[in-house]
Amino acid sequence: MIKNESDILDYIQAKINTKLPNIIKSIGDDCAVIRISNKQSFVITTDTSLEGPHFTKDYTAFEIGYKSLSTNLSDIAAMGCIPKYILMAITLPKLNTNWIKSFYKGIAAHVSKYNLALIGGDINRGPLSISIQVIGINKSKILYRDGANIDDDVYVSGKLGLARAALILKNKKKFTKEFNILKKYLHMPTPRIEAGLKLSKIANSCIDISDGLMKDLSSIIQQSNCGAEIYLEKIPTHRVIKKFISKTKYYECLIGGGEDYELCFTASKSQRNKIQLVSKNLRLPLTIIGKVTKRNILFKENGFEKKINIKGFDHFS
Amino acid sequence: MIKNESDILDYIQAKINTKLPNIIKSIGDDCAVIRISNKQSFVITTDTSLEGPHFTKDYTAFEIGYKSLSTNLSDIAAMGCIPKYILMAITLPKLNTNWIKSFYKGIAAHVSKYNLALIGGDINRGPLSISIQVIGINKSKILYRDGANIDDDVYVSGKLGLARAALILKNKKKFTKEFNILKKYLHMPTPRIEAGLKLSKIANSCIDISDGLMKDLSSIIQQSNCGAEIYLEKIPTHRVIKKFISKTKYYECLIGGGEDYELCFTASKSQRNKIQLVSKNLRLPLTIIGKVTKRNILFKENGFEKKINIKGFDHFS
Repeated sequence: MIKNESDILDYIQAKINTKLPNIIKSIGDDCAVIRISNKQSFVITTDTSLEGPHFTKDYTAFEIGYKSLSTNLSDIAAMGCIPKYILMAITLPKLNTNWIKSFYKGIAAHVSKYNLALIGGDINRGPLSISIQVIGINKSKILYRDGANIDDDVYVSGKLGLARAALILKNKKKFTKEFNILKKYLHMPTPRIEAGLKLSKIANSCIDISDGLMKDLSSIIQQSNCGAEIYLEKIPTHRVIKKFISKTKYYECLIGGGEDYELCFTASKSQRNKIQLVSKNLRLPLTIIGKVTKRNILFKENGFEKKINIKGFDHFS
Repeated sequence: MIKNESDILDYIQAKINTKLPNIIKSIGDDCAVIRISNKQSFVITTDTSLEGPHFTKDYTAFEIGYKSLSTNLSDIAAMGCIPKYILMAITLPKLNTNWIKSFYKGIAAHVSKYNLALIGGDINRGPLSISIQVIGINKSKILYRDGANIDDDVYVSGKLGLARAALILKNKKKFTKEFNILKKYLHMPTPRIEAGLKLSKIANSCIDISDGLMKDLSSIIQQSNCGAEIYLEKIPTHRVIKKFISKTKYYECLIGGGEDYELCFTASKSQRNKIQLVSKNLRLPLTIIGKVTKRNILFKENGFEKKINIKGFDHFS
């Protein structure tokens, strides 16, 4: 019986070949990895963006293009690699010249910034859907989910909960000002490419926080066969969230809410100085929020264990 | 003003970078080509399959999986390359266990036959949509659309018009028997991987006939900066089409109808014996249907020019 995304993946892995000699990493990480020479690999990801789960009618076409590519670039960032080539399979309900031009300007913004090339794709007519594939190459080491070591520090980049908080405050007249402060984090998330690249030499494991810290950290923990202790009060967030999000929704934003596209990574304690230097150079907070332990994920608030019942995002459950 | 798929491609090529040093072929062929070493390249394609243009409610889930991957493999075949790695971004309206298992069996059929690996993807909830990416590698030469030479023979593999004829006869009680004969060509087209590979050393240019011979041959002609003369009576087709398709729809099937996923290629006259040997070994007709000329496409029927007003498939016009 297939009940969620994870069941589909289990079925695929049981019934369909997922390995070949040059495949270093198949299904189960932010990107697949194909070895192309002794030192060089391609990292490849694909993500679809749809109206509903990924964007809503109030997004501009520019924002839809921008965010659709951001989510893919974020997967390359999580591997600590350099994005290079894009393919796009898009389905459009109709041809609206202004919409299409604005959409591709959102794509072009990333293409210029990261020196990418759009090399192929497919165009269809139907319900709006944007499937993007990005191929990247490694600069040095590739970061995987399964590299965490016991006693590693657990870090997050940036601030968490902003995308979910924006979603909660959206369309609430009372919070128009606050929504407008957070809107850019929901509509136009920044892929942490530079951070991923700098951390590739330093960190032991990494994932991007697309489905919420709880679910994404669990992937690191499960795949690294270890546990983690997280100090909730250390998770960096935005002042608007502290002030305007109700207590009941606060942790839903911080650890349940997806779409922040920040990085969660682990690194040996001996790397703390180097990591703070990366943080300073990139002007991006890289904050220790816990440590890797032998087993289970434990959340603590000011020293006391806190039970939190939050599931990460799954499209079918 | 953007009026069709081609206008979108023009806009992309004018406004977004499509080239980088290792890109041998960007937008404009069946696959993009990335050089990975002196002798080796990756060929990459992406295609989306949707209910409506690509399959209908009467398709089984197995057929939808099978055909969705066939259309991508056909692009690799047209480049004369070996398919290797697959990524799939699928959007499902709901989780139906039987449907999903049957769908992936359709995928697995190709994966086993061609020794592929499914290495990644994305699963979403929404209107049914299947975006597949296939990465292949070259065995020897890569076939492009722009390699046709004047005086080359123009060939097609297999028989043409079968998919379109099946679509015309579908749901017509009078033609149930005939539809059942042609159904497999519409629902489960065979990608011409083996033929593409054998022809890679022999042919000068190649494309897969996904949008109809008229439109796809035009791509070869335009990109090779030449023309062609096609002898309509030489285009191989199925006896059912000759017998049961009306005269007015006959050429629509043969040269307008897409989805045959046969190959159209050109080769020097000096290669005729080699090509007939490939045909014999693969038990696949490889038929000369015309020749490459200096300019324009000219259709002839039994020696007389025939004007045909057929457009190839475009999702928006």
